[in-house]
Amino acid sequence: MKTYKAYLIDLDGTMYRGAERIEEAEHFVKRLREKGVPHLFVTNNSSKRPEQVAEKLQSMEIPADTEQVYTTSMATAQFIKAENPDAKIFAIGEEGLYDALEAEGLTLVQDDADYVIIGIDREITYEKLAKACLNVRNGARFISTNGDIAIPTERGMVPGNGAMTSVITVSTGVKPTFIGKPEAVIMDQAIKKIGFEREDVVMVGDNYHTDILAGMNAGLDTVMVFTGVTSQEQLETYEKKPTYTIPTLEHWMDRI
Amino acid sequence: MKTYKAYLIDLDGTMYRGAERIEEAEHFVKRLREKGVPHLFVTNNSSKRPEQVAEKLQSMEIPADTEQVYTTSMATAQFIKAENPDAKIFAIGEEGLYDALEAEGLTLVQDDADYVIIGIDREITYEKLAKACLNVRNGARFISTNGDIAIPTERGMVPGNGAMTSVITVSTGVKPTFIGKPEAVIMDQAIKKIGFEREDVVMVGDNYHTDILAGMNAGLDTVMVFTGVTSQEQLETYEKKPTYTIPTLEHWMDRI
Repeated sequence: MKTYKAYLIDLDGTMYRGAERIEEAEHFVKRLREKGVPHLFVTNNSSKRPEQVAEKLQSMEIPADTEQVYTTSMATAQFIKAENPDAKIFAIGEEGLYDALEAEGLTLVQDDADYVIIGIDREITYEKLAKACLNVRNGARFISTNGDIAIPTERGMVPGNGAMTSVITVSTGVKPTFIGKPEAVIMDQAIKKIGFEREDVVMVGDNYHTDILAGMNAGLDTVMVFTGVTSQEQLETYEKKPTYTIPTLEHWMDRI
Repeated sequence: MKTYKAYLIDLDGTMYRGAERIEEAEHFVKRLREKGVPHLFVTNNSSKRPEQVAEKLQSMEIPADTEQVYTTSMATAQFIKAENPDAKIFAIGEEGLYDALEAEGLTLVQDDADYVIIGIDREITYEKLAKACLNVRNGARFISTNGDIAIPTERGMVPGNGAMTSVITVSTGVKPTFIGKPEAVIMDQAIKKIGFEREDVVMVGDNYHTDILAGMNAGLDTVMVFTGVTSQEQLETYEKKPTYTIPTLEHWMDRI
């Protein structure tokens, strides 16, 4: 049986469900730490800063350092930095995105942008969307932190960043580059950060269409856990299967 | 040569271009009035009240009564009234939409809506879009005043209602019923309002994809005028042609 040297781990549906603990997650992460196995929490959440994400995990008794959190905002900022460190950016988003762009020393502008980035922004305005469209029509490269169409809340499913992104896509006819899962971009950056060869890294998640496809797209082995979005019944209808499936993370303990 | 008994007339590109007069429009509309030919101005603009639209025309020396303006907000309100006069409606829009719904005596609600309507709203918020999605997921019928993807402004093209509508469509997976041009809905309502048989009514406009297709979809003869969006060169690439094409409205004066 293969043993993996490093783990990329999804959050919602894998470590917790919204505000609810997933019991097995604590045991799982503590085992990784005891065995000294490097791991990163990889999330499509663009709105939170990594320390906020780590705090949430800690509040659920799951050990997590800020440096172990890799958000799609961080992936977006590093992706642009690598393409063009002097890029002028018009960004729509929340503090997690603005902090990540600042951390990479990128320049924010309103007009004549080289890049337009959109991440979830619960303070969205028509003017922000208009500026994004004007910049994209003016030739700015169009980037979206993630294509999630809906966010689960206690009220029900509310619009995700993929839905907000469509305003710009539909209005300008320009399709964005998506950074978050299931795209390989965020995975490639996370693999680079964790510093192991792809065959030694495994992706663990509950959502076939984001986590598992992201792992596959990045050429990683994948572990699918049925504690979140995708059910065993749904999985049977998909042609390409994860490398492993487990009912809960408890069933993986011997592999660490 | 056929003489039409009633006219449906587009505004932007046909009567004016943004804030700019189209010289021939004044002469054209005055001739219709002199000859006593009934006409309605049919617009996809959902944000303005009909008296505001009439005032704009008057300010350009084009005679227009409030009763001669038919907006997509009025068409939307009348469409819903006919389906269900007791309908509870969650609406996103500007004063033109709210006034039209009130004029039909329809009831506005936040939750448990039977209908969700979206028209352009330059005061859009995430909360309004979230409520729209929650109501649509809860079974509300989804209506959009029009599918225009962009609005021309002095700054350039900014998002139109069709682009804003896509947030709800993408997030919920539910496609709306569009009311405005090129849909037949607004045309059917306008024909009913003007009170003539379809063979006696002609649609006049500059935009192939909205005005002319709307006329065709409603079974009307169409007059396309090259003073706005669609050029003669573009028209040559479209298979289905308007009944008539003219460089300016001056070329139609003998037909009135």
